[in-house]
Amino acid sequence: MTVRIGIIGTGAIGRDHARRINQVLAGGKVVALTDVNRESAEAVRAAIAPDAEIFQTGEDLIASPLVDAVLVTSWGASHEQYVLAAIAAGKPCFCEKPLATTADGAKRIVDAEVARAKRLVQVGFMRRYDAGYIALKEAVTSRTGAPIMVHAAHRNPTVPEHYVTPMAIHDTLIHEIDVFRWLLDDDYVSARVIFPRRAARSHGKLRDPQVVVLETAKGVVIDVEIFVNCHYGYDIQCEVVGEDGIARLPEPMAVQMRLNASLQNPILTDWKDRFIASYDVELQDFLKAAAQGTATGPTSWDGYVAAITSDACVTAQDREGEAVAITLPTRPALYN
Amino acid sequence: MTVRIGIIGTGAIGRDHARRINQVLAGGKVVALTDVNRESAEAVRAAIAPDAEIFQTGEDLIASPLVDAVLVTSWGASHEQYVLAAIAAGKPCFCEKPLATTADGAKRIVDAEVARAKRLVQVGFMRRYDAGYIALKEAVTSRTGAPIMVHAAHRNPTVPEHYVTPMAIHDTLIHEIDVFRWLLDDDYVSARVIFPRRAARSHGKLRDPQVVVLETAKGVVIDVEIFVNCHYGYDIQCEVVGEDGIARLPEPMAVQMRLNASLQNPILTDWKDRFIASYDVELQDFLKAAAQGTATGPTSWDGYVAAITSDACVTAQDREGEAVAITLPTRPALYN
Amino acid sequence: MTVRIGIIGTGAIGRDHARRINQVLAGGKVVALTDVNRESAEAVRAAIAPDAEIFQTGEDLIASPLVDAVLVTSWGASHEQYVLAAIAAGKPCFCEKPLATTADGAKRIVDAEVARAKRLVQVGFMRRYDAGYIALKEAVTSRTGAPIMVHAAHRNPTVPEHYVTPMAIHDTLIHEIDVFRWLLDDDYVSARVIFPRRAARSHGKLRDPQVVVLETAKGVVIDVEIFVNCHYGYDIQCEVVGEDGIARLPEPMAVQMRLNASLQNPILTDWKDRFIASYDVELQDFLKAAAQGTATGPTSWDGYVAAITSDACVTAQDREGEAVAITLPTRPALYN
Amino acid sequence: MTVRIGIIGTGAIGRDHARRINQVLAGGKVVALTDVNRESAEAVRAAIAPDAEIFQTGEDLIASPLVDAVLVTSWGASHEQYVLAAIAAGKPCFCEKPLATTADGAKRIVDAEVARAKRLVQVGFMRRYDAGYIALKEAVTSRTGAPIMVHAAHRNPTVPEHYVTPMAIHDTLIHEIDVFRWLLDDDYVSARVIFPRRAARSHGKLRDPQVVVLETAKGVVIDVEIFVNCHYGYDIQCEVVGEDGIARLPEPMAVQMRLNASLQNPILTDWKDRFIASYDVELQDFLKAAAQGTATGPTSWDGYVAAITSDACVTAQDREGEAVAITLPTRPALYN
Repeated sequence: MTVRIGIIGTGAIGRDHARRINQVLAGGKVVALTDVNRESAEAVRAAIAPDAEIFQTGEDLIASPLVDAVLVTSWGASHEQYVLAAIAAGKPCFCEKPLATTADGAKRIVDAEVARAKRLVQVGFMRRYDAGYIALKEAVTSRTGAPIMVHAAHRNPTVPEHYVTPMAIHDTLIHEIDVFRWLLDDDYVSARVIFPRRAARSHGKLRDPQVVVLETAKGVVIDVEIFVNCHYGYDIQCEVVGEDGIARLPEPMAVQMRLNASLQNPILTDWKDRFIASYDVELQDFLKAAAQGTATGPTSWDGYVAAITSDACVTAQDREGEAVAITLPTRPALYN
Repeated sequence: MTVRIGIIGTGAIGRDHARRINQVLAGGKVVALTDVNRESAEAVRAAIAPDAEIFQTGEDLIASPLVDAVLVTSWGASHEQYVLAAIAAGKPCFCEKPLATTADGAKRIVDAEVARAKRLVQVGFMRRYDAGYIALKEAVTSRTGAPIMVHAAHRNPTVPEHYVTPMAIHDTLIHEIDVFRWLLDDDYVSARVIFPRRAARSHGKLRDPQVVVLETAKGVVIDVEIFVNCHYGYDIQCEVVGEDGIARLPEPMAVQMRLNASLQNPILTDWKDRFIASYDVELQDFLKAAAQGTATGPTSWDGYVAAITSDACVTAQDREGEAVAITLPTRPALYN
Repeated sequence: MTVRIGIIGTGAIGRDHARRINQVLAGGKVVALTDVNRESAEAVRAAIAPDAEIFQTGEDLIASPLVDAVLVTSWGASHEQYVLAAIAAGKPCFCEKPLATTADGAKRIVDAEVARAKRLVQVGFMRRYDAGYIALKEAVTSRTGAPIMVHAAHRNPTVPEHYVTPMAIHDTLIHEIDVFRWLLDDDYVSARVIFPRRAARSHGKLRDPQVVVLETAKGVVIDVEIFVNCHYGYDIQCEVVGEDGIARLPEPMAVQMRLNASLQNPILTDWKDRFIASYDVELQDFLKAAAQGTATGPTSWDGYVAAITSDACVTAQDREGEAVAITLPTRPALYN
Repeated sequence: MTVRIGIIGTGAIGRDHARRINQVLAGGKVVALTDVNRESAEAVRAAIAPDAEIFQTGEDLIASPLVDAVLVTSWGASHEQYVLAAIAAGKPCFCEKPLATTADGAKRIVDAEVARAKRLVQVGFMRRYDAGYIALKEAVTSRTGAPIMVHAAHRNPTVPEHYVTPMAIHDTLIHEIDVFRWLLDDDYVSARVIFPRRAARSHGKLRDPQVVVLETAKGVVIDVEIFVNCHYGYDIQCEVVGEDGIARLPEPMAVQMRLNASLQNPILTDWKDRFIASYDVELQDFLKAAAQGTATGPTSWDGYVAAITSDACVTAQDREGEAVAITLPTRPALYN
């Protein structure tokens, strides 16, 4: 069975997912497109999905009998409405992060999906599909003993002027927030932020770098360095310290060279290259579940918990050094 | 356009390619199957390709108008006849190695394809599609200066009794023979084999390990250790020494662990895991070219040169320590 | 000139230093020994220093005209009195850590040395003499740009029952406390301790592991994992994050092996092996300065600051999560 | 006991050994110096050994009752005469490589020492004292199973015009020739040289690089790349393949850095830095044995075998690709 996909939002990520579905992955076909900028949708149709119909609105697209499942890759502020509409229509829906721009919005999605009593939403937390994190989780589960600490870093070469301090949480740490819950099979109970001196390359509206310390229900302490002007590269580090030993996220595959008095291998500089393969895997997972009329992978609940945790981290930025409690509602049975 | 694929030979590799085409990759569909053991073809149909028709013979399958392109994954001795039939039918054909069991057989395929004046054959040398070798070739081209030497190793944990000395060339070194021609953009002029003492785990019909020294037209000296009873793992090493520096084939991605007084990461033990991702890429390449009615990737000529080189290496095993000349016919323009 | 050395305290470390001076290093000779257990001193004389005279007390030894310079390697609680006596006698004195068991005791030594207006004391912080830390300091100074963060770990396989929580500071973290001041050329302004859940191997009187967060006058944030029951090995890690890049303390030299499906190299398990070479270098430095009647290397002031910082860290253990201020007196000019 | 040392030849290496004895190591004192250039000896006396007497000739120095043991660090062509004189005088003698400039010369030394029936000569093959090779030998002995192959490389950034092809053996490979005999506890039976194309940086009198293949009595095959214009650094590699696994010579300790989109650590460029610590250890070993009136470490026999092997390798350079037999006389019992 070929899953007929409608894409809401044909910007860079929507276009790239269209390419994946039509040119890379088995099992799906892009049959419907929409974008607030109709020309954008037409360009994607011309280049990638010649058979697709273009709809006026996301709601129209979702309602169309042509469409089996929906990709929400529009502007973040519009995600909630489209995801709710897809749930209402009973259609599987892949939603890029954020699930909603507020925790309340994410909660409305959770409530709707729970009311429907069926998993229909997959959130685009692609790191869970990265071969490195999967191998790390396997090592943590089978080799290192129960986790006690995590040391991590999220480093990026540079950010523009409009990137302000809370974005280090909402746009950057958000990936660690989700993937560590999954990695540790645990939830957060508090967040704390410690600021070193500002890096010279950090512009005035941004306190960069920062160290976020998260504590979990099982007593794991996680320290994450966020350094978005680190200059040297895009570099994701994660080390899990367990009862018996330590496991470390693999470095991306690279050619080791001996050149100019240096033993070296390249470090990536563009985040788009780091998890490129995991986007294929997450969408393949979506197509497979959608063929069964359901969804798998990161849930609405995961999106909601990420939103609650992010809010606590931003509060912790304002209360420098203080532990801010993170309290989660009861997890609905649908997500167990 | 969906390329309609017929598969000749539904053993392990044929079945796996059927899975790739129907469940992993965009652009193809398995519509026809045949195997000397009809039950095998029926099993693949049942599990993976429910819409496929089963044919009595490979020739029937090739001739069928249902079939746009052919995968030859049958017993090696039958490859030549099917590839020739596919060329005669003007249909793109992916042939697992060996292209033919003799250099003469491979030459007949080259001649047929040249007579047709169109590339129709892709040989299954999947290492050219491995991300590691591709990154190595990029490093050799752009960073290390012109190659002068290659140090390589092909190690395997253990082999069964029926694996005799020449198989170290035909079944094992064959991959290095092809991939180094591609990596260096060069051809071989001689082969020499040096035997250390036999490893304790080597059985009586096999001289294991061995060191093969190849020299190329451009003057590159390549030493390859072949050690098929190395015990510790399946381990492929390649280091290119150039005018300005050295580049090394990446190790497979692995989680680094600190455990039991040891800093360690796993080494693969099964060859099937080592290049698993490259099989997807090579078949994607085949599907893309087949949609245009042609073939790309490793050519019949490459298969023919590999056969000539292998024969020289086997001769060199019998003339231990002696350099055996490798003389190639003129390369037809079709393969430039 | 050969410096005539008297050793106060001939336990394991005193004996080992006697061996260094008489059998490894140029420039010194052990001429005097004393120990509360006279048999211990006699054993060292018999094995290592046959010409040495045995004294009744440390004070006698220090006063003897036979002795040019003194090594204090006795029980920690006795260090202060011997160092003060050596200063009073105007003789160079190498004192194993701690310089004194209290900050006040260390201050009395600083005051005495300042009153004498001459450096006479070297404290046994041997990490400053480790080739790895020296290379790291060079990299931090010349390559990474100004430091912003340090991520470190001090891991030890196991500790006995008598090792209680504050010893993680006084006996373990003390090395990081000193070496980071030297590495960063900076002083601490606060300490904070965060406790993950207790490791299963930690006995009841010890909260293990712990994360100590230090902040410096220049705004550097340092996180140090202390994990003294980590099981897998003795492992010292240090990574300095600067404006332009990151430098990491070298791993101890080790043979990389491919064995049993694992790429591995040994990790040390005994702290005595980790900095073994640096003990030679620090004593060589002492002998060289003592030949000039003075001392070099880690100062009394460094010992005093380490004591003040340790006290703050222990307070921080009791006020979990809270930043405890570290206030230092003005540094006397003698130590600039 | 302090061993009174006389040094014959006060050039760079003689001077450096004088410094070691007087300023670094316990147990020795430089009491006598001589050099064909008297000013050189005087300069060393002034800087390092103020109490040393300067002799007119090496023979005078050896004969002097002031001198317990001798260091021969003069011009290579003069080594034989001084070593023979030291043996005649019954004094322990450390001789820098080569022991003699011909195999016959080395044989005369062996014969003289055997006639004396006492070990008096240590040859300056310092790699046996390198901590990396010692750890490798330990790994090979205890972990990898019996050796079958060795892959090695000796790379140097650049050489001057006067460095001609045979010097790649006599001055460069000589270290591998000795250290592999020791590492494997084995002797050579043949040598073969294979030349790739000449590197662009190689001047006209030198064929660089080259691959030397040595076979041992136990059937081990050793390939060594010699590349003295490799440009990128001074880099010594050695990998031993055994029945159960592989062990690799440790890389020199280095700070790993993340800088400029590169994960890197420095490679040495000057050979003098690579084995610097091993010079201390070898001389310490000499002093210790000399205090007992004898010698330890690499023997005259080792020097003789190295000379025979080197001659075979030079012959093999002239008979490109051909295996040249290496036949050793019977080893005298003194060297078992």
